[in-house]
This record gives sequence, C-alpha cells and structure tokens, in this order.
Amino acid sequence: MLPFARFLVATVLCLPTAVLATEIPPELAEEAAGLRNVALAESDAYRLVYSLTTEVGPRLAGSEGDRAAVAWALTTLSELGFDDVRTQSVTVPAWERGEAEVQITAPFPQDLVAVALGLSVGTREGGIQAPVLRVTSLEALKELPENHVRGHIVFIDRRMPRTEDGSGYGELFHVRYDGPAEASRRGAVAAVIRSLGTSGDRFAHTGITHFPEGVRPIPALALAGPDADMLASQTATGQDVLMRVRSTARRLPDARSANVIAEIRGRERPDEVVLLGAHLDSWDLGTGAVDNGAGVAIVTEAARLIATLPRAPARTLRLVLFANEEAGGHGARAYAAAAAASEEKHVLALEADMGPFRIWRVESGVGPEGLPVVAGIAEILEPLGIAPGDNDSRGGADLGPLRKTGVPVLDFDHDATRYFDIHHTVNDTLDKVDPDDLRRCVAAYAVAAWVAANVPGDFGRYPERDRAPELEPGAEAIGSGRSR
Amino acid sequence: MLPFARFLVATVLCLPTAVLATEIPPELAEEAAGLRNVALAESDAYRLVYSLTTEVGPRLAGSEGDRAAVAWALTTLSELGFDDVRTQSVTVPAWERGEAEVQITAPFPQDLVAVALGLSVGTREGGIQAPVLRVTSLEALKELPENHVRGHIVFIDRRMPRTEDGSGYGELFHVRYDGPAEASRRGAVAAVIRSLGTSGDRFAHTGITHFPEGVRPIPALALAGPDADMLASQTATGQDVLMRVRSTARRLPDARSANVIAEIRGRERPDEVVLLGAHLDSWDLGTGAVDNGAGVAIVTEAARLIATLPRAPARTLRLVLFANEEAGGHGARAYAAAAAASEEKHVLALEADMGPFRIWRVESGVGPEGLPVVAGIAEILEPLGIAPGDNDSRGGADLGPLRKTGVPVLDFDHDATRYFDIHHTVNDTLDKVDPDDLRRCVAAYAVAAWVAANVPGDFGRYPERDRAPELEPGAEAIGSGRSR
Repeated sequence: MLPFARFLVATVLCLPTAVLATEIPPELAEEAAGLRNVALAESDAYRLVYSLTTEVGPRLAGSEGDRAAVAWALTTLSELGFDDVRTQSVTVPAWERGEAEVQITAPFPQDLVAVALGLSVGTREGGIQAPVLRVTSLEALKELPENHVRGHIVFIDRRMPRTEDGSGYGELFHVRYDGPAEASRRGAVAAVIRSLGTSGDRFAHTGITHFPEGVRPIPALALAGPDADMLASQTATGQDVLMRVRSTARRLPDARSANVIAEIRGRERPDEVVLLGAHLDSWDLGTGAVDNGAGVAIVTEAARLIATLPRAPARTLRLVLFANEEAGGHGARAYAAAAAASEEKHVLALEADMGPFRIWRVESGVGPEGLPVVAGIAEILEPLGIAPGDNDSRGGADLGPLRKTGVPVLDFDHDATRYFDIHHTVNDTLDKVDPDDLRRCVAAYAVAAWVAANVPGDFGRYPERDRAPELEPGAEAIGSGRSR
Repeated sequence: MLPFARFLVATVLCLPTAVLATEIPPELAEEAAGLRNVALAESDAYRLVYSLTTEVGPRLAGSEGDRAAVAWALTTLSELGFDDVRTQSVTVPAWERGEAEVQITAPFPQDLVAVALGLSVGTREGGIQAPVLRVTSLEALKELPENHVRGHIVFIDRRMPRTEDGSGYGELFHVRYDGPAEASRRGAVAAVIRSLGTSGDRFAHTGITHFPEGVRPIPALALAGPDADMLASQTATGQDVLMRVRSTARRLPDARSANVIAEIRGRERPDEVVLLGAHLDSWDLGTGAVDNGAGVAIVTEAARLIATLPRAPARTLRLVLFANEEAGGHGARAYAAAAAASEEKHVLALEADMGPFRIWRVESGVGPEGLPVVAGIAEILEPLGIAPGDNDSRGGADLGPLRKTGVPVLDFDHDATRYFDIHHTVNDTLDKVDPDDLRRCVAAYAVAAWVAANVPGDFGRYPERDRAPELEPGAEAIGSGRSR
C-alpha cells in the first residue's frame, strides 16, 4: 500500500486550491462494507451466467444469437425489477465465420487447427496454396522487402507471455489487428498468426483484425499454439514449406443490435449517473461464459443487490450491456454519443470484461479530487485481497468513447493468469466459471458502485493526458491489456 | 515397500521345491545402475517423438499416415543400427472419420463439440434428428424398457474420475465400448457419450466402440466435457431436448499395415527373447505424441542405449512397434501367432503405452521364480522414485495375446493424472512431452530390459489365473486402466 499512499499524498498536495477532495463519510463506508459482506454471502451471479450461456450461448454481434441475447437481457433485467429497462439501437457489422481449413502440404503433410480472424475475408473456392514465409514479429515483417513477401502466406510467429495483469495481450494486440494488413501491403496472399493466447492446448483464438481503406483484404487466420509449433518445426527443416488455406468467412450486410440499459433511479441527483457496464456480445466459438457472460453477470448482480437495499442511491446507477464490443465497439460509441447529447452527467464509469477471476487490484483514471474516494474504496475492499493501484487506468474498451469526453473511470484488475488461455476460443464455456470467485467480484463492483452513487463529492474529469486524440477502433486494447 | 516385501516373502516360502528363485548378480546390478545413469544423463527419446510427430503426425491404422509411420520406423531403426530390421505384415480394419456435427435444436439451439467413435458408422445424408434420452450409466440404460429408448438418441452421461493409476478409464471403458451397442439393442437411433477423459476443456475423446454380430450398428459419438454439461443442463430444464447428429464416418476395405521389428541379437542365448514393445499407430485427431509417440520413443531409445554398450546382452532384445493397437489389436495378435509358431522362447515382455509421464511404480505378472529379479529391478530404480507394486499386472494391451500363451510381463505405471486429459483428442501433440520426464522413463525401461536380457534365471510363466479365457477384443483395457 505504501507506493499508493505516497502517490496520494503527492497528488493531494498538488491540488488546485479550488478543488476540494472529498472522503467517504463513515456511515457510507459502513453501508458499503455491509453490502460487501452481503455480496460475499448471498450474491448469485452464477445463475445469470448459467442462464445466458445455456439459453443463448454464442452471440456474435449481428447474429441470431445476438438477437437472442438482447431478448434475454430485456427479459432478465425486467424480471429483476430494474427501472426503465430499454434498448438503444446500434448498427453493427455482421460477419459469418464459415469453415476454415489449413494444411501443410509439404514437406510433411499435416492438418492444422486454425480459425478465421474476426471480420476477415475468405479465400477463393478451393482455397489457396502458397509457400510459407515465417517472421517472428510485426517489425520483422515490416523490414522485409516486398519481393520477399509477394505470393507467400505470411506466418507471424510471436508467442504471447502469461502475466497476471494481461499486459501480454496489449503488447501483441497489433500482431493480430495490423499484421494481416501489413502482410497484404507487401503482396502476401494470406496471413496466419500464432494465436494471441497463452494456452498450450490445441485451441485457436479468434479476434478482430482490420484492413485500412486502400489495403486489399486477404484471408487471415490464427493457428492454435501446437499448430504454430508444427509450422515452425517444418520451416526449421530449411525445406520449402507449402500450405493450403481455405476459408469461407465473409462479411454480411450490417445488422441491427442494441445496447440494453436498466437503472436504479437516483433519489437525490437522478441526472448524475454512475455507470456499470459489460458487453453482452461474444465471439461465436464458445458460449462466452468468461468473455463476457461473467462480466454481464457480475455487474447485473451487483446492481440487483443495490436494488434490494432499503434506500435508492443518491445518484442514478445505470447498468449498460453494450452491443458489439468484440467486433468494433459500436455499442460503446452509440452510448457515448447519446450521453454527450443528453443533460446527464456521468460521474464515474466501471466496466467488467476480464472474466470471473479474482480481483487483485483497483486502478482509476479520475481527477485529483476523486483520489481519496478511490483510496477509501480500496480500503473497504482490502479484506478481499484487492490492492490499490495507480491512476493511469484507461478503463475497459467500452468505456473508451466516454473517457474521451472526460468521464472518469474505475477499473478492477482481475487475475488474468488463465484468462488468455480461454479468451476467444471454443473453450470459453461455463465450467471455467467458479461461483465463489464470482461472489468476490460482485462484492467489489457493488461496493464501488454504491460508494460512487452516494458519495457527496465527485471524481472530477478523466485526466487530460490522452483525452484528445481519437484512437483507431480496437486500439483501446493496446494500452490496457484489455479483452477486445 | 512393506506390503511388497511381505508379499515376496510369502511367495518365496510357497515356491515348489523344484523352482529356484534367482537374484540379480551384483555385477549385473551394477551394469544396470550404470545404464540407468547414462539414460538419465544422455538419452534423447525426445528427438524420436519430435521426428515421428513432425514428419508423420496422425497415423490411424490403415491410413496414409500409418504407411508413412511404418516407413519412418524402418528408416529410423535401420539408421540406429539395430539387427534384422523388418516388417511383419498385418491386415487391419480401415476407417474414415469424415465429418461430425452435433447440435441441440431445442429447447435452446447450440452447437456441440463431438467426435465419432472409432469404427462407428455414419448417419444418413443430412443427419438424424431425434429426442435425447439421458442416462447416467450403462447399467441404467440396460434397465430401461425398450419402448422408452426406441427412436431416441441415447446420451450416456458418466463422468470419468481422475486417478494416478488411470483406473477410471478401465472402470468406464465399457461405456464407450459397449454403450452404443446396448443403445442399439433397445432401438436407439444414435448414441452419444460423455467423453472418456478427465479434461475440463472442450476436447472430445475418440476411441474404439463395437457392435457384436447381429446388433445393428448406429452412429456413435463422444461429446467434449463442457458439451456434455450443456446437454445435461438442457435436459435438466425438463423440456424435451431435440438433437441433430450428422456423421460421415465409414468403414473402408481392410488394409495392410505392419509390425516393425528390430533387435539386438543375444550373444549367448539368441533364441530367448526379451520384448520391448510399443504401438506405432495412433488415433487420427492429434499427432499421437503422448499416445503413443512417447512409448515408441522410450522403448526405441532404451534399446539404442543398450546397443551402444560394449557387450551384447546374453539374450536377444527385441523391439516391436505394433500395428493397430487402437482399433483392435491386430498387430499384437499377429505377433503372438508368429511367436507361438516359432522355436523362440519369450522370457519377458514390457510395453510402453502410458505416455511420457514419470513412472511411479513397477508391477509384474511373472512366475514366483521371477519375483526376486523384479524386486531387484525395483531396487535399482528406487532412486527414480519408482516403488515396487504387486504381481497382478496384465501388462499393456499389446501384450495380451502373448500373455495368454504364458509369457510373463513387467509393467511400469506412469503417472496417469494428466494422461486422460489428452488421450485420444486433437490435443495429443508434442508440447505435452517433457524431455526430462522422457529420460527418466528411458532409464527405467533400459534397466529392466538389460537385467532381463542378462539375468541367469528366468521369469517363469505368467500366472495361470486369467490365461485360459480368450477376452473379447478391446477388453484388455477393462482390467488394467490401459490406453486402447
């Protein structure tokens, strides 16, 4: 706790004289601690993730499953008794995975486990066969002369490190997001990457890739770790390695989806909003239990617990289940645009999108006046093993557009050690969710939300440092190790 | 060690007076300990399993991969300098997996991860749709009246326990081997089982099933654990669960395969044979690194180390890489038939078919006169953490036909804790193999083989108790937790 305390003191000393730091009043802290204990003892987010994964399952934006998920959320939130349950319409890109086949055809024929990357194009009928060019980083690819790359299937073979904070994902995000376009720029006929993931098992990890205006889209796929090993072993023989890739992935016409919104209306300052968010969509391979059924369940259950308290919060607590985080963040942008056009003030935003695993740290991106409250929240959560972090958080991907308008964020770091074993694979299923871990997560989100919705002062504005530049879609993940 | 010591004393006291127990002469024990140390320091079985999995990969009996594996074995064993490298022709059933699709269509449509069971038949074109009938054991299925079962897809939902000795597999083997036939007898249109495996991940485990003469074959598949959970959850709603199953699996005409045999000819008693065996074939899903690339590599490297010693063993040490263990044990039967027709005497047989994992116990199935030598081998291996076991072993599946003719067996128990996570799945790949664990395995097999090939006395005959009855094919695995 020492570094944080030091940081706090330094920050408080630097406060402009007009800004008054507030602290959590003792009775509010006591209420929050009580809520924490109730959440630990009685919360049941598991039933929500069970229901969503069993009754809906995969829910890729724009798909039939996505429509079922929106219907599920409307029904579920209404049944839970929230105020003003509603949808906010969002237009999303739709995409169909189809089938993918990847085979080494020489020197030693072998079938490989691969998945098409999100929004990627397919091959021509019958597939493509071409020699493989292996590079170990995006930088190495960029240094290659075009005549080395032309006509090849580029294989970017970079291994993602396993870390508690998930930072390995942020570091390698550009391999998946930009790598295929960089290969195309140099004349590659297709791109395959070693999956962005930490599992040693034979699961390939999907996720969004993109081709900027003017760059010819090429088929882009991810290999499971053991299959990337196989391809690397065959290239290591020094013999020419030929590969056949077939993918029937294709874009479909844009589709309608929706953010699903519910709230507990504030009894004193209803136009001041504390936002609890989680994306409702998932990739199409697994049932999206970890990413992000768990997040949906955690924030919904945290809000439900607050709704059962004898007194409504002073501010409005709003639950937002965002559309299409995975394939472009369209729900987040639609929400932020509507928020900017409204009279409401967003006091603080929190998002759950790091699975059902235990929280080990709370970070923030708040104005200096909010720091004592953040420290107070950390103190209430200390019995859960949650340590205070720094104030450099960007929050989750769905908070990006709000944050750019100055909305401050609070951010719980869940243990990401196993998260990227499962992330964006067929293996993202309910059995990975531990009900007891979920209860601990619910406690943390409920405490933070209750405090933020009742504390007398506010959290100021998100620090100026990166508010100005509009990041390209998907780039959220680069800095924060987040899960898009 | 106490129970074993007690057992030994009891057995030795009961020896018929004509049988003389021999012990390991001190100089032989010393040589064996030296061989153990060389194996720990210098053996490199990993390069063999690397080569087999990279250059051949999946090698289902009767397939192109199987032919490549036989060619690989001939080349590899010749290059290693063994005597009399040869094939022994074996006719094997051939089978094509084709494609499998399993979907729940009501109440909540979901795709399930499933694989066809080995040798199973396909569905009609377009698949089958039928209501699901869930039972939790084969016994429960057998108790159901036929009119309950007719027209259903039977789902046998029995969970395999995780154990160090792999006994869970032996206990549930009949679910996969007999379950689909029992479902067919009662009029089921297809059968799906919860995979025989311990992984919580989304891998379905294949393996042989069978339909006795007169029982109509029906499509038979295994679901991954999380998918069996999903199906169980949907049946638990009490609503009718409809499932669609499509499989294009089919039998092909019988094919030619081969046992691949090499030896180190005995310098004193060449007609007395110590057999080191491992099956060369694999299922078609993974590259067969664990099952049984590891076994092939362990016994081959153990024999190679012995071949580098200054003196050939007194007896002939024979390496047998068996054909088609997985889908019927045809190689083992062909070998045993040829052995029975020859003048040779098989003194002891060992088989490696439990993966690359550490060995924790040595068991035997030898005559009483061989027990002191088995105890001596255990003593030499004690520094590897290998404990003495009992004399009730049946040996591995490929030793079954030899054992029935009285050939005694020695049997190393590898740690099976993780083995059945990987077994018969697409996830059986090289990354699951640890080179250091392999060195320890090689040391154990090399020591046992060197002692057996040089010890003055012999191991008698396999105990009478189960020599007489001819077990049905596949039933080997029931008693021993073995890996077919």
